[in-house]
Amino acid sequence: MQAYIQQHKNRFISELLDLLRIPSISADSRYKNDVRKAAEFIREKLIAAGADSAELCETPGHPIVYGQKIIDASLPTILVYGHYDVQPADPLDLWHSPPFEPVIKDEKIYARGACDDKGQVYMHLKALETMLATGNLTCNVKFMIEGEEEVGSDNLGNFVKANKEKLQADVILISDTGIISNDCPSLTSGLRGLSYLEVEVTGPNRDLHSGMYGGAVANPINILCEMIASLKDENKHITIPGFYDEVVELSREERDEMAKAPFNLEEYKKDLNIGDVHGETSYSTTERVSIRPTLDVNGIWGGYTGEGSKTVIPSQAFAKISMRLVPNQSPEKITELFTKHFLAIAPKSVKVKVKPHHGGEPVVTPIDSVAFRAASKAFEEAWGKTPIPKREGGSIPIVALFEKELGLKSVLMGFGLDSDAIHSPNEHYGLFNYIKGIETIPLFYKYYTTLSKTEGR
Amino acid sequence: MQAYIQQHKNRFISELLDLLRIPSISADSRYKNDVRKAAEFIREKLIAAGADSAELCETPGHPIVYGQKIIDASLPTILVYGHYDVQPADPLDLWHSPPFEPVIKDEKIYARGACDDKGQVYMHLKALETMLATGNLTCNVKFMIEGEEEVGSDNLGNFVKANKEKLQADVILISDTGIISNDCPSLTSGLRGLSYLEVEVTGPNRDLHSGMYGGAVANPINILCEMIASLKDENKHITIPGFYDEVVELSREERDEMAKAPFNLEEYKKDLNIGDVHGETSYSTTERVSIRPTLDVNGIWGGYTGEGSKTVIPSQAFAKISMRLVPNQSPEKITELFTKHFLAIAPKSVKVKVKPHHGGEPVVTPIDSVAFRAASKAFEEAWGKTPIPKREGGSIPIVALFEKELGLKSVLMGFGLDSDAIHSPNEHYGLFNYIKGIETIPLFYKYYTTLSKTEGR
Repeated sequence: MQAYIQQHKNRFISELLDLLRIPSISADSRYKNDVRKAAEFIREKLIAAGADSAELCETPGHPIVYGQKIIDASLPTILVYGHYDVQPADPLDLWHSPPFEPVIKDEKIYARGACDDKGQVYMHLKALETMLATGNLTCNVKFMIEGEEEVGSDNLGNFVKANKEKLQADVILISDTGIISNDCPSLTSGLRGLSYLEVEVTGPNRDLHSGMYGGAVANPINILCEMIASLKDENKHITIPGFYDEVVELSREERDEMAKAPFNLEEYKKDLNIGDVHGETSYSTTERVSIRPTLDVNGIWGGYTGEGSKTVIPSQAFAKISMRLVPNQSPEKITELFTKHFLAIAPKSVKVKVKPHHGGEPVVTPIDSVAFRAASKAFEEAWGKTPIPKREGGSIPIVALFEKELGLKSVLMGFGLDSDAIHSPNEHYGLFNYIKGIETIPLFYKYYTTLSKTEGR
Repeated sequence: MQAYIQQHKNRFISELLDLLRIPSISADSRYKNDVRKAAEFIREKLIAAGADSAELCETPGHPIVYGQKIIDASLPTILVYGHYDVQPADPLDLWHSPPFEPVIKDEKIYARGACDDKGQVYMHLKALETMLATGNLTCNVKFMIEGEEEVGSDNLGNFVKANKEKLQADVILISDTGIISNDCPSLTSGLRGLSYLEVEVTGPNRDLHSGMYGGAVANPINILCEMIASLKDENKHITIPGFYDEVVELSREERDEMAKAPFNLEEYKKDLNIGDVHGETSYSTTERVSIRPTLDVNGIWGGYTGEGSKTVIPSQAFAKISMRLVPNQSPEKITELFTKHFLAIAPKSVKVKVKPHHGGEPVVTPIDSVAFRAASKAFEEAWGKTPIPKREGGSIPIVALFEKELGLKSVLMGFGLDSDAIHSPNEHYGLFNYIKGIETIPLFYKYYTTLSKTEGR
């Protein structure tokens, strides 16, 4: 298969560039048609790769692409999940090349979606093509590639519930995470959950002159700042009552095991150009981004933000706030606790509204499962190293959904790097990682099939 | 004179509407030509009112209109100051009628600048016309109407310094403040000062994925909120070291005298639709907006603020912050104290920049001066009531400048109302106040001339 991949490498890359050119921004209704165009692209390429069938399944939102290649009903079935939609590209002025005009520089493809998630999804289509072209497909495969992951996968749940028969499989394979480095491959053994809310603080019923009213009237911006600041104490511990109740603390042994993964604090700080890291007292950086919950303000606005000065006390101030969760925190419960607390700490001089956005459950993948071990062996063979189990900081909300509705565990076998700058300007994906992923994926199929035979699925 | 005013009342109003139609927004360079157009309008109307001369004096910014009517060099000279530029009108969607298409509704003129300051400036031109037309001008008058008050009067200082001869006078008359109510006229006996700064907090060198980095990296929005929140304690007292050092505390007697001015807390809260007022412990609302310094965030922004959700830790967060000052706080000193403190409280995990904007000195006007008493008598005659001396919350930075460069005190004789919503959408000015002002101003001239003769200027 390696020979086939090398032979068709340039085409594999140029097809991905074509996909990257489509601005499939799910958060922005102005790009609705482009989102559909990307779905169509995936569908066509599934057929071209050798799928029996591939179709666009309509939803109230963006379509879900479903395709399959069934070779023998008695063999295991792998269900590949991914998403063809991308994050918004702003701030545009910080991109060195336009986000939807991919360029290859320093052996990396630069474009919005290069890593998250188009580059990683497309590896699976090329892996399918490779396995079929070389007669190496060892089991059945189904594809479910959606277009709303970046906005909460609102319609995926209903699709899954309505298509349980069609989606029957033995394991779900997802490439939407990363490895520690190209020298130190890793496999995701857990994901954080997510709770996302928007808050609105209203003071006076109109903007006020800050000379005339300043000092006597609550300024919603000042109040919002105070409320947000109060959400953490001096140890950066979140102060919402009940927030940590369900958090599963790792044992000292587990934390020691985690600490063995390579991590260079100086390089980390240098890469981000920060004077210091900053987080919950008595946890390491690696622990802070994986086994501990967080609270971040993702956006804040209010008052006069234009050129020069305006001495106004604005009527309103706003913020978007999200929390990353760990097992066994429940997004619904956390959203409720946040809302209750935020409304309670509001002074009588303002009115506060809290609007919840989409959430997601945290997840832990058992590392002794057949699927995890198959992925591990695939990495050993393709990369020459045993991958380190790693808990990710990010969220893939539908992993918990899949377990609940389909009874299926997910294997999170991603090939991205932290430096790929997903969700940021100048997102990119290494050619090495792209091609290596295409090599590794068929090995997962091989080992999963073999191990299932001897141990069950 | 009252008969003349009544006879020409409609024209006095329609000329003001013409002036209000010109969008002379000094803060926005796109309106540069309109600002000049408003200056030209004032110049022409000064001539039409009977001034000996009126001219546009060029500056590096917007022009200053200078005009004069000298009847006898041995008589006192009143120097009228005002501004023809206006605040930006945003947020536009909250105006009931377009800000530069004045309408008269419920006996009020609605337009940006109706009160601040065009309505009030134009009263002085119509007062001049009235006094001249009826042979009642008792002393000399000079006009200095600038176009940059809303953006800090940056070029006024140099103009004043370069034209001390030309601007020689005995007192400065300014109508850019207000009265307590039409039933309770008042005279401004003090103004607060102003310190205005813009702050920038930078965390990582790029926007980050909040799953991947959340919990380990300082989020500049969270940090900015914490820094702003720390600027006040639980008593709403500002925590910047040295901030209150120069504040002159009023005596118990003075505070009791202030407390006699009519003020209805319930109506105040109802007018703003707030559940409670909010300010420094152990000071009344009236005291909080006049004799106490303040700190307000006028604008804040950072991160993703568009439609939907984006799980980002932004690279930067920003705020515009201003402080109203009281005697004897110095704007330069306060700006320095703020900057020093804000930089000092920044954690090592972020980089902070502080950029000062324009400031202004606080002012107290002696209520036993000839000028203050002349204004008081003018109100008694025109309104039938002795005006209450009142300390204003707002700032007019050039009042201190005038004293320093020209050795002149200012009389702050304004006719606006708090409900006129200056700096806000739907700014307006009462027809009653406009016409009453035109009646009152000539009486100031009369009493000032008379009192000066017996007591000196």
